Amino acid sequence: MPKKVVTLGEIMLRLSTPGFERFVQADSLDVTYGGGEANVAVAICNYGLNGTFVTKVPDNPLGQAAINHIRRYGVDTQFIARGGKRLGIYFLETGASMRASQVVYDRAGASISDVEISEFDFDKIFEGADWFHTTGITPALSDKAAALTEAALKAAKAKGITTSIDLNYRKKLWSKEKAREVMTRLCQYVDVCIGNEEDAETTLGFVSKGTDVTKGELNLDGYKDVFQQMKAKFGFKYIASTLRESYSASDNGWSALVYDGSNFYHTKQYEVRIVDRVGSGDSFASGFIYGLVSGMPMNEAAEFGVAASALKHTIPGDLNHATLNEVKDLMKGDGSGRVQR
Amino acid sequence: MPKKVVTLGEIMLRLSTPGFERFVQADSLDVTYGGGEANVAVAICNYGLNGTFVTKVPDNPLGQAAINHIRRYGVDTQFIARGGKRLGIYFLETGASMRASQVVYDRAGASISDVEISEFDFDKIFEGADWFHTTGITPALSDKAAALTEAALKAAKAKGITTSIDLNYRKKLWSKEKAREVMTRLCQYVDVCIGNEEDAETTLGFVSKGTDVTKGELNLDGYKDVFQQMKAKFGFKYIASTLRESYSASDNGWSALVYDGSNFYHTKQYEVRIVDRVGSGDSFASGFIYGLVSGMPMNEAAEFGVAASALKHTIPGDLNHATLNEVKDLMKGDGSGRVQR
Amino acid sequence: MPKKVVTLGEIMLRLSTPGFERFVQADSLDVTYGGGEANVAVAICNYGLNGTFVTKVPDNPLGQAAINHIRRYGVDTQFIARGGKRLGIYFLETGASMRASQVVYDRAGASISDVEISEFDFDKIFEGADWFHTTGITPALSDKAAALTEAALKAAKAKGITTSIDLNYRKKLWSKEKAREVMTRLCQYVDVCIGNEEDAETTLGFVSKGTDVTKGELNLDGYKDVFQQMKAKFGFKYIASTLRESYSASDNGWSALVYDGSNFYHTKQYEVRIVDRVGSGDSFASGFIYGLVSGMPMNEAAEFGVAASALKHTIPGDLNHATLNEVKDLMKGDGSGRVQR
Amino acid sequence: MPKKVVTLGEIMLRLSTPGFERFVQADSLDVTYGGGEANVAVAICNYGLNGTFVTKVPDNPLGQAAINHIRRYGVDTQFIARGGKRLGIYFLETGASMRASQVVYDRAGASISDVEISEFDFDKIFEGADWFHTTGITPALSDKAAALTEAALKAAKAKGITTSIDLNYRKKLWSKEKAREVMTRLCQYVDVCIGNEEDAETTLGFVSKGTDVTKGELNLDGYKDVFQQMKAKFGFKYIASTLRESYSASDNGWSALVYDGSNFYHTKQYEVRIVDRVGSGDSFASGFIYGLVSGMPMNEAAEFGVAASALKHTIPGDLNHATLNEVKDLMKGDGSGRVQR
Amino acid sequence: MPKKVVTLGEIMLRLSTPGFERFVQADSLDVTYGGGEANVAVAICNYGLNGTFVTKVPDNPLGQAAINHIRRYGVDTQFIARGGKRLGIYFLETGASMRASQVVYDRAGASISDVEISEFDFDKIFEGADWFHTTGITPALSDKAAALTEAALKAAKAKGITTSIDLNYRKKLWSKEKAREVMTRLCQYVDVCIGNEEDAETTLGFVSKGTDVTKGELNLDGYKDVFQQMKAKFGFKYIASTLRESYSASDNGWSALVYDGSNFYHTKQYEVRIVDRVGSGDSFASGFIYGLVSGMPMNEAAEFGVAASALKHTIPGDLNHATLNEVKDLMKGDGSGRVQR
Amino acid sequence: MPKKVVTLGEIMLRLSTPGFERFVQADSLDVTYGGGEANVAVAICNYGLNGTFVTKVPDNPLGQAAINHIRRYGVDTQFIARGGKRLGIYFLETGASMRASQVVYDRAGASISDVEISEFDFDKIFEGADWFHTTGITPALSDKAAALTEAALKAAKAKGITTSIDLNYRKKLWSKEKAREVMTRLCQYVDVCIGNEEDAETTLGFVSKGTDVTKGELNLDGYKDVFQQMKAKFGFKYIASTLRESYSASDNGWSALVYDGSNFYHTKQYEVRIVDRVGSGDSFASGFIYGLVSGMPMNEAAEFGVAASALKHTIPGDLNHATLNEVKDLMKGDGSGRVQR
Repeated sequence: MPKKVVTLGEIMLRLSTPGFERFVQADSLDVTYGGGEANVAVAICNYGLNGTFVTKVPDNPLGQAAINHIRRYGVDTQFIARGGKRLGIYFLETGASMRASQVVYDRAGASISDVEISEFDFDKIFEGADWFHTTGITPALSDKAAALTEAALKAAKAKGITTSIDLNYRKKLWSKEKAREVMTRLCQYVDVCIGNEEDAETTLGFVSKGTDVTKGELNLDGYKDVFQQMKAKFGFKYIASTLRESYSASDNGWSALVYDGSNFYHTKQYEVRIVDRVGSGDSFASGFIYGLVSGMPMNEAAEFGVAASALKHTIPGDLNHATLNEVKDLMKGDGSGRVQR
Repeated sequence: MPKKVVTLGEIMLRLSTPGFERFVQADSLDVTYGGGEANVAVAICNYGLNGTFVTKVPDNPLGQAAINHIRRYGVDTQFIARGGKRLGIYFLETGASMRASQVVYDRAGASISDVEISEFDFDKIFEGADWFHTTGITPALSDKAAALTEAALKAAKAKGITTSIDLNYRKKLWSKEKAREVMTRLCQYVDVCIGNEEDAETTLGFVSKGTDVTKGELNLDGYKDVFQQMKAKFGFKYIASTLRESYSASDNGWSALVYDGSNFYHTKQYEVRIVDRVGSGDSFASGFIYGLVSGMPMNEAAEFGVAASALKHTIPGDLNHATLNEVKDLMKGDGSGRVQR
Repeated sequence: MPKKVVTLGEIMLRLSTPGFERFVQADSLDVTYGGGEANVAVAICNYGLNGTFVTKVPDNPLGQAAINHIRRYGVDTQFIARGGKRLGIYFLETGASMRASQVVYDRAGASISDVEISEFDFDKIFEGADWFHTTGITPALSDKAAALTEAALKAAKAKGITTSIDLNYRKKLWSKEKAREVMTRLCQYVDVCIGNEEDAETTLGFVSKGTDVTKGELNLDGYKDVFQQMKAKFGFKYIASTLRESYSASDNGWSALVYDGSNFYHTKQYEVRIVDRVGSGDSFASGFIYGLVSGMPMNEAAEFGVAASALKHTIPGDLNHATLNEVKDLMKGDGSGRVQR
Repeated sequence: MPKKVVTLGEIMLRLSTPGFERFVQADSLDVTYGGGEANVAVAICNYGLNGTFVTKVPDNPLGQAAINHIRRYGVDTQFIARGGKRLGIYFLETGASMRASQVVYDRAGASISDVEISEFDFDKIFEGADWFHTTGITPALSDKAAALTEAALKAAKAKGITTSIDLNYRKKLWSKEKAREVMTRLCQYVDVCIGNEEDAETTLGFVSKGTDVTKGELNLDGYKDVFQQMKAKFGFKYIASTLRESYSASDNGWSALVYDGSNFYHTKQYEVRIVDRVGSGDSFASGFIYGLVSGMPMNEAAEFGVAASALKHTIPGDLNHATLNEVKDLMKGDGSGRVQR
Repeated sequence: MPKKVVTLGEIMLRLSTPGFERFVQADSLDVTYGGGEANVAVAICNYGLNGTFVTKVPDNPLGQAAINHIRRYGVDTQFIARGGKRLGIYFLETGASMRASQVVYDRAGASISDVEISEFDFDKIFEGADWFHTTGITPALSDKAAALTEAALKAAKAKGITTSIDLNYRKKLWSKEKAREVMTRLCQYVDVCIGNEEDAETTLGFVSKGTDVTKGELNLDGYKDVFQQMKAKFGFKYIASTLRESYSASDNGWSALVYDGSNFYHTKQYEVRIVDRVGSGDSFASGFIYGLVSGMPMNEAAEFGVAASALKHTIPGDLNHATLNEVKDLMKGDGSGRVQR
Repeated sequence: MPKKVVTLGEIMLRLSTPGFERFVQADSLDVTYGGGEANVAVAICNYGLNGTFVTKVPDNPLGQAAINHIRRYGVDTQFIARGGKRLGIYFLETGASMRASQVVYDRAGASISDVEISEFDFDKIFEGADWFHTTGITPALSDKAAALTEAALKAAKAKGITTSIDLNYRKKLWSKEKAREVMTRLCQYVDVCIGNEEDAETTLGFVSKGTDVTKGELNLDGYKDVFQQMKAKFGFKYIASTLRESYSASDNGWSALVYDGSNFYHTKQYEVRIVDRVGSGDSFASGFIYGLVSGMPMNEAAEFGVAASALKHTIPGDLNHATLNEVKDLMKGDGSGRVQR
């Protein structure tokens, strides 16, 4: 019986310009579907576990297509509610060199933001579940979505399921103040807290010294200090952050720092030539969760997560289609890229 | 000095599946931009006149791309306001044979529905204008958009500019009752009223007998009766309707009936093999307006309009890229489709 | 609890030339996956029932992609075996007018032809099942595949599950003699027998008089005579055949004849403008099965099947993505193809 | 030893808009290469004979690509000269229904128009040849090209090779007067004269009564009268014309009339749904030549030619990729378009 | 009232192979339109100023499409003349690593080379203009085009408009001798002279020591010496050159050197990963012009220009779609390429 | 009279995912055709020599398309046999950064593996030939294919033609033991032996010390030792190996080591940014063969080969479309990638 990981959040239609075209040039847009928690559910399925995704989509062909897209990769979609007005959309233009990728969100009024807790039966959803994961994006969507997130976290905790959250602050969705208020409340139900470089401060108010995220210089000491503060306040079992050195839109350094309350571990750093970096944080989260839920020690789970997300950078779309064996091979050190025949 | 035709309404991002793919199959979507009144402005420019389009789009790359799309075809876009939250979107799946084309609208919250009259300077907009055109879609978007439409119609009338409206009832935007109330108010400022088969009843409450729009049998007598009622109530100078015989999603019969208060004229009927029928009503409207503003008698203007829109059925996208000469040649009877070398 | 329909057969990689390109012109090929029984399982899911597909695919990314493709549309794929050497392929070139579509099969050595009965647990597969469906293609693939087909039919019959078979003779897979021998044996376990025009003779030896399948003239009397012979020999509960009048590769007449041992029923005939006619027989079968398993009387089930398959002709790919409501609307007579907004 | 057919003329880069897009919409153009005589050489190779094409292309990658394109289909390209300034181009927009296809020629200054007779060794070119074919386009390109055409025809006649010409008047290349002067001179070396409906008059001055080419009504008596005049003046062995009934850009009737000086023969008429009608005249010419050079009687050669060109209408590009067997099957009457598995 | 910059030159149809395909492989070509001076006009509009482009295009759909392409990006095209025979074309194959990009020009006989001064009314064109820009390509096209260029420069000077020229020597268009003669004459009307590395010598005869342009080693001292010679002879107000270090077709170093007669300024050097480097010189010119016409000091204008053109290297097509804010952000140092959400 | 190089082997349909898509994402596949020996024949033709390719393909449109693909690039295909069951296929997914490219072979049962020696007339095939080349893949396909390879090598040797083999061990086709037995037998007829890093050991049993092919560190001394052993055992005239330093799937170092029994020569190393590395070994082989058959000394031939194959890495598909001049220019040191206008 494979482990079961439940995730809850928004799934959006992703419309990206082909190649390196800018929005004003595009005459067609590539279609995929994704979102932080859906991306995690897919990756979990890729690694052979049971990934269940909970959301609400409109009862129209686009909502159906979103469901189909993750069902295609094995996600259990039976608990997805239907209704509401629209599927959230995000538009993506892929950058290169010194030109950054650009995202235009068009998610206001999405079905998941107009959701009632009663549309979901958490007893059934969490039946047999080992892990529950969500992100700081979901509660930012609306008060109703925040209430749903809290209800889900509470229900999971009540059933003894391990819970994780990826802080993921989105400044266009809510203010720093609102974020801190809600996230602080939610974090009391969280076992594993994942955040990228800037979220710890904006979302939870912990100040990291000396990391200018537009520069990409890593300040591990600052991170460690913040992690210790987070541990002290919330008692998280594990705290993790990816560390990106953004040399340009084409090349990044990529590693992770994890902490279990006593030890810090900084993974190997990968130098990645980027094909598509959207979803790389989710691919780390899903890899780290996979590692932990499968019984790996923290260090190994972190290496699994960072290898998985290094591979994600080379794959178009939000979803990480790297296989279990590919991640494991990369962890063992084969990044030579020799043709596999 | 070419004649100047001003139109006001919404421009949307149109995302259509390639070929005959259904939404659930599509991995890319073709991008164009259009909307009833924008389509009219483009066609007016194609015929060599000055087409000016008034709307509001968000201040983001998608709003810019929408402007660019019609600017490409010569439309004067200088009066377009920027702001608001999003660009309206519509998704299109092209049907064939007995499978109908499907449209999924995602236009709630579009910038044009959150608009103030003060964002537009109608003195400047109507400077030198000969015609003002809008549709029943714009006032249906929101109360603010309805107020803007009324203000524009009033301003045009005050300046002695000919005004036209295409009734275009959209049942997902407003109720029959609301439509009738608003449209009845607007129609007092209208000189030329265009409606397809079902709009006269839903929008203005005139009952046409014996036309079942899902069958495609024409009942000219019923139409004539309705036109006379419309004339009696609103005193329109011209009333026009396209007449579609929908044999299937691939083949239609297409003609128009026009009325000037004393005479009816039923144009030639074209048998069209359909490439893309979205925007065909707008292409009739723009052709009819072109004819009238250029000084053609009603009958000739109607033949121009129906020939123009017959050609539109063969062109992908919302916009009618038929040229003045092509329309005139078709009016003269050359529909043989022989290669032009 | 939705009804459960199990199907067993081959799923192939379908590689088709874009547009109307010929094989010698093509520089890319469109990818979908399909096969007679997989197509039925997908359609069953589209209509809201539980479709379960049983097959064997290679343990490589192409096998996975085939599973993903039908999983995307809701098919239960948990019983699919993995192993063997390759995924069968078929290449398709879409014809037009007097140029016929061409299929090049490349299915020899496919995993499903190298299969052991022991790879499947029919007790689990048929748990809760209401219907089992297969075709004459599966037993034609290899002796092992024929043995599997027989085992499945026997197991289904033993459990009181209704069984159906689509005769589907493929002359490149086996001889008429071999086909007759095997199919005669299999038909003893079959309740519902579906065959297109030429299969009854080649596969079961029943001679239909007066139908020249390259002409497309229907000879209903000949069909009725054959159906009566089939009933007499095998005692089928229902016998059904689609009737194609092939005017050209672009236009066909399409209807069905069904028989329950006492009454014949000839459905409405649809005149279809063809987008993609591959899988049209499967779409009739799945529609007819849906009707019967849902409790429709034979005539209505046949009308459902033929309306479903008329729609299939307008959809690219093997799979029928028509929805339940679309089929029902068409049955009620709306084939006008008017835009659905 | 297969028969050898030599053709001489221009090969152009053909740039066509995808689907039914108009020039002003296109963001990419499909690339093939073709031209009247090159098209004939390719078809001749398709039928299993030796097709040799003679032309001059620039010594740049586009010239090479043009050679490659016909070499791909088996044409002997060893005698093609390299030099001059550019490859001629033609732009194509495919029409539909009442919108005609449009061709924009951009062939001025092409290498073949700046050609010296001394660049070709006709002794080698015609070694073992059975037939020489050219069209009225080649001499229209320039005086040098006309001189080359005449030299080739003379050389072929001197060697006893059967010669054919397709009149193909192009009004943008030369005047009626110039055409008549040159073509009258060339026709003295011609055995088989092929012309579509309007060329006989413009090019050779023979007046056909009652055929209005924009209407598509056939006037066989007028044709016969013209053929008799042509026979009387030039003593052609065979005279042939395709007969197009152009109902629209999507549907045409298509047949041919041939004459051997004593008998007229009007072939079967095909009703074609058009995919791409460019090159249909060339596909008739190549089919007719194939028939005659293979020893078919005139009537059968004409039926071969018209069946071949009916199939061409269903194939994208200038070239006819119909195979020998496909043409023969269609001649035998199978135009039902049933899938070939 | 935004500043007005007028440019004069050729606009061509650009046909580029998709991805990294070579010409001999391509089955489609991507379509854009561009040319040195048109590219400048578009960029000027992107930055919010009035860009007016003057040229002559054929009166056919391709000429119209060229106009549409720049009109789409806001360029004032009202002064473009129509007539002549053809639109110039250039074919592009994008290189990678050690394989250089290849351009095949096909511009002989373009409408702009067959142009009369009387086709343009420079009084109207220059009404309200602040700047006039052209390049050394335009006078190279034909004597008529050279005469037009001189007339435009003279007219601009007479009206006190600042003038600039980009030397841009094209060896396939004219000889070094002819270039020197004409360009020396034109430069007397020029205020700002821009040249890439090799043009100063070929076009104006100034010898720069020690820069081997195939190596990419910069020799700033040589440049400075040449700039001083240029200043001495022509009295230019500003002299500027981009400096490219071409490591490979995929990676370049990119900076600029500017001179105002007293001070030299060498900008920051960007290390660019190239998407499309065609038009990078034009993007520097337009950025530098924007800076100067907007009142920036020379150094800042040069930094603006080089940042703008660094971004251009990451954008497909000739045109620079970088926005004003993007250029300014890059100038401020954010080249980290972090996703903009 | 250009030199004639004959090659014998398999040609496969290559189906690759677009861009960097993974197999499970792909909705279309790009089509080319290739295989080790076919790739060599094409490159030989590119350099202006006569390349003749010998194989067997099925008598269906895919077999024809394979022939067409190499005929397009000038290969003499007249000796290709037709028959057997299918064309071999290989599926390719292009990697990036640390994600390796993946190849799924589907070549079992290909026509070339079911081949009789009597299907080929080696007297005719080798008429006028100067070189015969094959690889270790062909004998691995089947015993029949091995027998054919041996017969061809023997026939070539008997006629005094220089013979070469590229060892190319494919572990999915045969065991190390079988490979050694067969290849040892074949090598007695071989003059020039080419092998990449790992083949010498697996195929011939020579142990190279210290090269871990997954690391990319070169151990030239180990190579030299192996080469000397090979020379001692087989008396090869030349032994050559490419040397790849695989930093990642995106960047490689690339050089070659050659040996003539007395001297070793290590070529320049190129640092390549990879577009498509499939076929790079073949492009070295064809370049080295070209050099030797054209009379270059070994060192120069090796430099030609490695420059040719460096360019191949930048070209999509199996085939090397670099021209003779491009290779020569790169040999001379111009790898700056400056645009060629």
